[in-house]
Amino acid sequence: MGNRPAVICALAASEPALKIAVALIIELINTGTELMLGHTLNTHQQWLCNRLADLGYSVTRQVAVPDTGPEIQAAVREALGRADLILTTGGLGPTSDDLTRDLIAQLLGRPLHENAKVLAHIASFFARRNYPLPAGNQVQALVPAGAQVLWNPLGTAPGLALEVRPNPFRPDGKVSWLIMLPGPPRELRPMFTELVAPLLREKLPLEEAFAGRTLRTVGIGESALQAQIAAPLQSLVAAGMELGYCAHSGQVDVRLAARGNRAAELVADGEKTVREVVGPSIFAEGDASLESVVVRRLTERKRTLAVAESCTGGCLAHRLTNVPGASAVFLAGLVTYSNEAKQTFLGVRAETLAQHGAVSEAVVLEMAEGARRVTGADFALAVTGIAGPGGGTEQKPVGTVFLALAGGFPTVVRQHLNLWERETFKQVTANQALELLRRALDTTDHGQSGQPV
Amino acid sequence: MGNRPAVICALAASEPALKIAVALIIELINTGTELMLGHTLNTHQQWLCNRLADLGYSVTRQVAVPDTGPEIQAAVREALGRADLILTTGGLGPTSDDLTRDLIAQLLGRPLHENAKVLAHIASFFARRNYPLPAGNQVQALVPAGAQVLWNPLGTAPGLALEVRPNPFRPDGKVSWLIMLPGPPRELRPMFTELVAPLLREKLPLEEAFAGRTLRTVGIGESALQAQIAAPLQSLVAAGMELGYCAHSGQVDVRLAARGNRAAELVADGEKTVREVVGPSIFAEGDASLESVVVRRLTERKRTLAVAESCTGGCLAHRLTNVPGASAVFLAGLVTYSNEAKQTFLGVRAETLAQHGAVSEAVVLEMAEGARRVTGADFALAVTGIAGPGGGTEQKPVGTVFLALAGGFPTVVRQHLNLWERETFKQVTANQALELLRRALDTTDHGQSGQPV
Repeated sequence: MGNRPAVICALAASEPALKIAVALIIELINTGTELMLGHTLNTHQQWLCNRLADLGYSVTRQVAVPDTGPEIQAAVREALGRADLILTTGGLGPTSDDLTRDLIAQLLGRPLHENAKVLAHIASFFARRNYPLPAGNQVQALVPAGAQVLWNPLGTAPGLALEVRPNPFRPDGKVSWLIMLPGPPRELRPMFTELVAPLLREKLPLEEAFAGRTLRTVGIGESALQAQIAAPLQSLVAAGMELGYCAHSGQVDVRLAARGNRAAELVADGEKTVREVVGPSIFAEGDASLESVVVRRLTERKRTLAVAESCTGGCLAHRLTNVPGASAVFLAGLVTYSNEAKQTFLGVRAETLAQHGAVSEAVVLEMAEGARRVTGADFALAVTGIAGPGGGTEQKPVGTVFLALAGGFPTVVRQHLNLWERETFKQVTANQALELLRRALDTTDHGQSGQPV
Repeated sequence: MGNRPAVICALAASEPALKIAVALIIELINTGTELMLGHTLNTHQQWLCNRLADLGYSVTRQVAVPDTGPEIQAAVREALGRADLILTTGGLGPTSDDLTRDLIAQLLGRPLHENAKVLAHIASFFARRNYPLPAGNQVQALVPAGAQVLWNPLGTAPGLALEVRPNPFRPDGKVSWLIMLPGPPRELRPMFTELVAPLLREKLPLEEAFAGRTLRTVGIGESALQAQIAAPLQSLVAAGMELGYCAHSGQVDVRLAARGNRAAELVADGEKTVREVVGPSIFAEGDASLESVVVRRLTERKRTLAVAESCTGGCLAHRLTNVPGASAVFLAGLVTYSNEAKQTFLGVRAETLAQHGAVSEAVVLEMAEGARRVTGADFALAVTGIAGPGGGTEQKPVGTVFLALAGGFPTVVRQHLNLWERETFKQVTANQALELLRRALDTTDHGQSGQPV
């Protein structure tokens, strides 16, 4: 369903990844012919790299190979020659193209033994569903000699953790840990969080303390943000704090990380500085979405919302209703693409449309006030603009956007020029609208009165 | 924003990737510290692998490394030791962490020369935006000796294509092609389609003829589809045709591919068979979206559409308005989350809501007919249901959905049980609604009358 918007990331300090990498070499191997045919997006890479980074570990290399013996063995052999930790995903299922377990056991010369406890778990998995145990699933109870079983309550394939000691593939014979995870995300993710993360802390502890923090901002460009916070953070960066930026669709994440005795202190100081300088633009920590923050604040304050969208075409309503529990605060979304719809549903006046055009301050104001009036919501957001590729004029080029927020105070109107392709344009514009409301909820008297921002 | 729905893919024939891989060894190297930190999803992998597969080329390995010199050089060196074609993405920008061009030139011992034409293109890129040429961008005009420039009308970084002949990293000295592509998807994608694909056909022609075809279906489960088409296709598979399935959010793609003298014939026969068995469920070939097919048919037939959404919360409107030109046929979307909104905007009767509940056949019927009436659209789609995680009852569990299509014929109502997490539920439900309309447009007299399906 459409493309992901472009994401641009950068690290401010010089080569910090290298600095991390020397600590511990970690490689990720994703197996799956479906990846090589482009049938699936490799969400494992993003999820695992993100979680590892949050724990202070950094992935040095990620490799994807098809479900074929030579390719999987070559990738694992090469990784064993370099890495302290290797995580594999996929290939633990019951079918003929699930080869990871067998190939790795073979490569390491470890015999496979049927594990009675694992077999009992698999049998009970099917028994609870009133299915007989398929013959193919019995291979999932095979465990390479010396491997630790990572229990999988959500599926039949257990994960496997192996200490390769001595390691014949590493020139210095140094130990490598090899951890095999099942392919389905809903099995892999809890297994990583509940079993692999503690195992790493025990077996591959960080040489130094680690602290990390991501602050999510919106409404301020990456360059502008950098220009404002880089100088005040300079002394902390000089003291060893890493500073990174990640921009996506009008949002910029600021990532602070540090290692060593002063790690927590450096990151706490860094966060304090960033908050002092651009505090009002920070909408969340970690990975919370802007829409989830807005829905949570509306819920806390028992306020309701309606939206009137033209150029975002439902994107705003769609994102708000992706948040579980949105129905408690979100009353209605009116996607008034045509002029007639703006008149019928929002009471925008024909004269206003004729005099100012559908993409104008006057129209967006009537849209927001109309949406609030007809729905009875406490707040109403309205958006009108030109998403492109067609429809632009010299005076109002493609990318022109007007936003309005009505809420019992003088209606606030903003104008932007969002020069992005159509789908990113919609996301950026929706972010600007959500941010207008978030600021109002923050700065008004519990969102009940007063001029926001 | 939010997670991608789960995608499940499978290949019916045994180990077809191996069969493809022997022809030509192709490796993809994605550079970017943001990938290793999990800040971004590697959409390049999926997109490029998919396009290459469509052209008959198969990627043997994909590697992602951070933006650091040793990692990038090591990955490129290893790939040059194995592959006939290496594609790199990213690292061609103007900043200090854009190192790909320099590192590869260094590795191959090719001096960099400023290319006057490229510099003029970069200068004009900024001049058109009334910006002075930043000093950093001049490095983008540097071209390694012997490299072919791949023009980038959408950005400042040209792509670069290099024939490594002789190749010092390959034991047999065999030639490798090395193609560097810029990171931003909106620059990389047209560059691949317009410049790289023709280059591959010229410089690395397939050893055997190739034919491939993807047929996109909706409204039929993967197992059901397989049960219907596997037997009729058996003889073609035995003759060497590959058959693969890819399921995502209620859609299943069927991929047919073959090589050799009979390739085109096998795939054409396969397509004919699939169309005979499940023709009405096929909505597109290649990668066209269901919403784009619906918008195109409405446009061709000069018919207009309105949507009334409850549980999909704007997803339907959002997807329709992602299609350029949707404004010509899409009049309005009414996201009536609350009962009051259903009454106010769609004229759903209070008695109907009280008697049947908001999630019912009676209400969805009034929603669709109301949306058609109030907007004057030729067609109206309506959706009501329980997305979850909360709100289910014993009689109407989470996942219950009612859909309706009004269009001047007796309004059609459908009931489904969509057992997916919230975001996938919305996409699956939107697909069912779009499919209801697509079928009506196909089977009625140009969508003007008659009972569809």
